[in-house]
Amino acid sequence: MTEHPFQHFYPDHLAHCYGCGRLNDQGHQIKSYWDGEESVCLFKPQPEYVSIPGYVYGGMLASLIDCHGTGTAAAAGYRAEGRPMDSEPVLRYLTASLHVEYLKPTPLGATLEVRGKVKEVRGRKVVIEEWITANGDITVRGELVAVQVPDSLVLELLDKTGD
Amino acid sequence: MTEHPFQHFYPDHLAHCYGCGRLNDQGHQIKSYWDGEESVCLFKPQPEYVSIPGYVYGGMLASLIDCHGTGTAAAAGYRAEGRPMDSEPVLRYLTASLHVEYLKPTPLGATLEVRGKVKEVRGRKVVIEEWITANGDITVRGELVAVQVPDSLVLELLDKTGD
Repeated sequence: MTEHPFQHFYPDHLAHCYGCGRLNDQGHQIKSYWDGEESVCLFKPQPEYVSIPGYVYGGMLASLIDCHGTGTAAAAGYRAEGRPMDSEPVLRYLTASLHVEYLKPTPLGATLEVRGKVKEVRGRKVVIEEWITANGDITVRGELVAVQVPDSLVLELLDKTGD
Repeated sequence: MTEHPFQHFYPDHLAHCYGCGRLNDQGHQIKSYWDGEESVCLFKPQPEYVSIPGYVYGGMLASLIDCHGTGTAAAAGYRAEGRPMDSEPVLRYLTASLHVEYLKPTPLGATLEVRGKVKEVRGRKVVIEEWITANGDITVRGELVAVQVPDSLVLELLDKTGD
């Protein structure tokens, strides 16, 4: 696996996300890495993220698919341009759509392995295929469509809120 | 709107969900009601559920679509059988799949209105169409496929975990 997680390279103003922002103390702070052609994120949900007792809450699983997917899309963008993630210009991807299939209940207490693979790149759109494994079983499959947005658009959105 | 939220009628062992369980003190405890043929849930995400500063985190929005959708599926099941939600046998729906389209950034600080509508019923499968409005703008559209599972299956799952 690569040394630093993808999220390590997000600029500060993009590092507050509850799912993946390293500056959000209350959030999940997930960490995603390359593992060959696939990306991987290991994460153990805390006990409160329960659906029925003993199983992980679907919203948490959707969040993992979301944030690991946008991280993978960003990393794939830099990789396609043959440059490191700390180089300029910053590539930032937002989620356009998210699809999650809950194949079976995901046990709480296990360390989950979230994996992603770039399925398709069409202009600024990237489609990431993902799956979550718990104790060796694939429990969730997902697909995310991410869109690369110019950093200027992100700054404009921030500007509207006064941040 | 109806007097009690749908989630009020979930039996105790099904009321721990981080998104909608009334017994999860750390969770969102969303509340969904009928409003004519549509179901509605009002929810104001707390400030930590941020994506980029000033906007709601996508995982939270996916969670709202998920839990409001399964709640609507359950309420629709009782309504189809012409009986109240506190009658036996208990009808319980789990999410089979979830699709979320992020149309535009959802402002943080606004009270969100999540609405649902039964789109299709096919045997034990119910398809719920949903949308989220913030400050009068639809920012998210979603679709959820819920499957009715026998309470015995839920009890079997609980049994496996020792709860």
